[in-house]
Amino acid sequence: MARLVMKFGGTSVADIDRIRNVARKVKREVDQGHEVAVVVSAMAGETNRLVDYCRTISPLHDAREYDAVVASGEQVTVGLLAIALQEIGVPARSWLGWQVPIHTNDVHGSARIERIETKEIEKRFRDGMVAVVAGFQGVGPGGRVTTLGRGGSDTSAVALAAALKADRCDIYTDVDGVYTADPRIVTGARKLDRITYEEMLELASLGAKVLQTRSVEMAMNHGVRVQVLSSFADTPGTLVVDEDEIVEQQVVSGVTYARDEAKITLESVADRPGVAAMVFGSLADANINVDMIVQNVSHDDKATDITFTIGKADMERALKVLEGRQEAIGYRRLGADGNVAKVSVVGVGMRSHAGVARTMFRALAEKNINIQVISTSEIKVSVLIAADYTELAVRALHSAFNLDVQ
Amino acid sequence: MARLVMKFGGTSVADIDRIRNVARKVKREVDQGHEVAVVVSAMAGETNRLVDYCRTISPLHDAREYDAVVASGEQVTVGLLAIALQEIGVPARSWLGWQVPIHTNDVHGSARIERIETKEIEKRFRDGMVAVVAGFQGVGPGGRVTTLGRGGSDTSAVALAAALKADRCDIYTDVDGVYTADPRIVTGARKLDRITYEEMLELASLGAKVLQTRSVEMAMNHGVRVQVLSSFADTPGTLVVDEDEIVEQQVVSGVTYARDEAKITLESVADRPGVAAMVFGSLADANINVDMIVQNVSHDDKATDITFTIGKADMERALKVLEGRQEAIGYRRLGADGNVAKVSVVGVGMRSHAGVARTMFRALAEKNINIQVISTSEIKVSVLIAADYTELAVRALHSAFNLDVQ
Repeated sequence: MARLVMKFGGTSVADIDRIRNVARKVKREVDQGHEVAVVVSAMAGETNRLVDYCRTISPLHDAREYDAVVASGEQVTVGLLAIALQEIGVPARSWLGWQVPIHTNDVHGSARIERIETKEIEKRFRDGMVAVVAGFQGVGPGGRVTTLGRGGSDTSAVALAAALKADRCDIYTDVDGVYTADPRIVTGARKLDRITYEEMLELASLGAKVLQTRSVEMAMNHGVRVQVLSSFADTPGTLVVDEDEIVEQQVVSGVTYARDEAKITLESVADRPGVAAMVFGSLADANINVDMIVQNVSHDDKATDITFTIGKADMERALKVLEGRQEAIGYRRLGADGNVAKVSVVGVGMRSHAGVARTMFRALAEKNINIQVISTSEIKVSVLIAADYTELAVRALHSAFNLDVQ
Repeated sequence: MARLVMKFGGTSVADIDRIRNVARKVKREVDQGHEVAVVVSAMAGETNRLVDYCRTISPLHDAREYDAVVASGEQVTVGLLAIALQEIGVPARSWLGWQVPIHTNDVHGSARIERIETKEIEKRFRDGMVAVVAGFQGVGPGGRVTTLGRGGSDTSAVALAAALKADRCDIYTDVDGVYTADPRIVTGARKLDRITYEEMLELASLGAKVLQTRSVEMAMNHGVRVQVLSSFADTPGTLVVDEDEIVEQQVVSGVTYARDEAKITLESVADRPGVAAMVFGSLADANINVDMIVQNVSHDDKATDITFTIGKADMERALKVLEGRQEAIGYRRLGADGNVAKVSVVGVGMRSHAGVARTMFRALAEKNINIQVISTSEIKVSVLIAADYTELAVRALHSAFNLDVQ
């Protein structure tokens, strides 16, 4: 007997038939003798509908009221799933965030979970009952409804798994696992049986929209074994685990890409102390996150070029900020390019293997793909290239690191 | 300065524009210096959508889960109305049933309000804040969400007005008051300025779908002054008050009708003690409510006819019950007619005036309308007639009691 948390996202509960399908999947685990808590999102489209209502009434709406409105979406699905479970003979009851309770801080709209009381749910487990828990929501210190921000249901599930000391947290989604690359681009992409938390974290933040970054961090911190698998297929998924659980480690586990960044270049910046701090300080003040940063060596003794990437949505705003500070920063020309893509290779194995960067750059050069910016971490190498070459680059790298299905 | 409860139903908050309209109506009262609590229903259509979901999954769904699902509708409107109020400069916050809290018993799906804690809301009143309270919902003894049953938001509003000792409870709806008759049928129908609780109760249960019966009972028991008025017009409505607040009492205040009953006749029933108890006991066991009952005098010494009315929706079921007990009851023939209407005249004034029944029967006779069943209470006389004559009968009675606009 194991204790499991199963999480189903919005597309998995998009209509009554799919909710019934979820109930059958839960029943299968219950029939194995497992104790099961299920975390569900709102029906696909519901959260957007509710968010639109709030925005239409007031662009600057009270976040506490917004939370009350949007949390209603999960309230519907927990009740419906509990009914669907009972209908096929599985004892179940729904739990709203405030009923569990899932205590959060009071940062409405993007609250953080602080504590989950599991006593009542565990009591029901002993009676053979499934707990159907509303994802994405909790209750703040003042007794008001809070929400965790987009993708928060993954975090709810992992946090609940940690609090319940569950043996596994299964995240059901519309893909059947984590692949070595986007299968829509690379036909030879392979599903990974296992992946480390660190790799998953890089993949999550690099654009593979399988798991929410915060939920992976939380899983890593609490040692929750997470499985990503499909709501619609009956195949095993990808297990996210500690490095030591992976026997035969690949140098590179996957190739990923993101097209939501823009590149900004400041040409001929005065090469003196404090200039970089001024550039990135101005952007931080405007709440603009910077990702990759490169500062070239000086052309001469007095000037250098600074290139960096930011979210494409922030591009216009960033340009305005920097134009306003041209005199203070002292650059000659400001350039921007939204037509770029970031392509990355990720793998814990590269820690102990030299030559990953060389293999990567050579593979790109062979396809005549120009590298604009490079950034590296312990377990990944990322390059910025012209967006047109994205698919070509991903395929070339997938082959270069021998990831294609044999 | 007064303390007001304002209640808006589903059609009054059916879309964003209407929610904004509600906010403006609330602001007007706040600008007068009044303390205001607003009770709202779900957006029109929402509750039906949610109920359908539950029924589709399981016709015999768990009422506790049903309550969690359908209560989400009001959760959306309270948040949106609070945002709309803030947007026009009125400080406001939303309150869900469990937050107030509105304590109910645990009869899920049709719970009764037991106690409302008003301390927190009154504290906010002192800070000049409007309380936007979810109608139709409460919290049961075990901390689960309960709902009060269809039309329950009227009851929520009156109960809150009683708990807050409000000066008035304004029920905004899609009609602009209580009329002497249905204005769609009687062109000369007049809006009543005032009506007594007792009359309103008769009108509510007789088919004038203006106020939910339970809310009128509660208003009467707690002496809450209720006003029925339009969300869409700016005219005063009808005030529901104690009899002694009405100076010039009419004999008859209104004429009303209902087409949702069916007539059942048992012919030649053995005229011996215990037979009627057997007939109506069998129906009660099947949860079928009986309205009007007539037992004629015996044709001879041994047999009589029993005629009664029930809800049209129960007709087939009632026939089945009675057919199954033919031998025990000992009737000769069973007849049923769903094509009937109940027309009633209502007025507290008839207590002290003889001749109401005579005027009524004469007016119907003049139009050649046959009376099938008669029933009376202290303040109403009802007759059952063929449904085809409904409009004709209502108009004739409206004139006969001098209710037409002069």
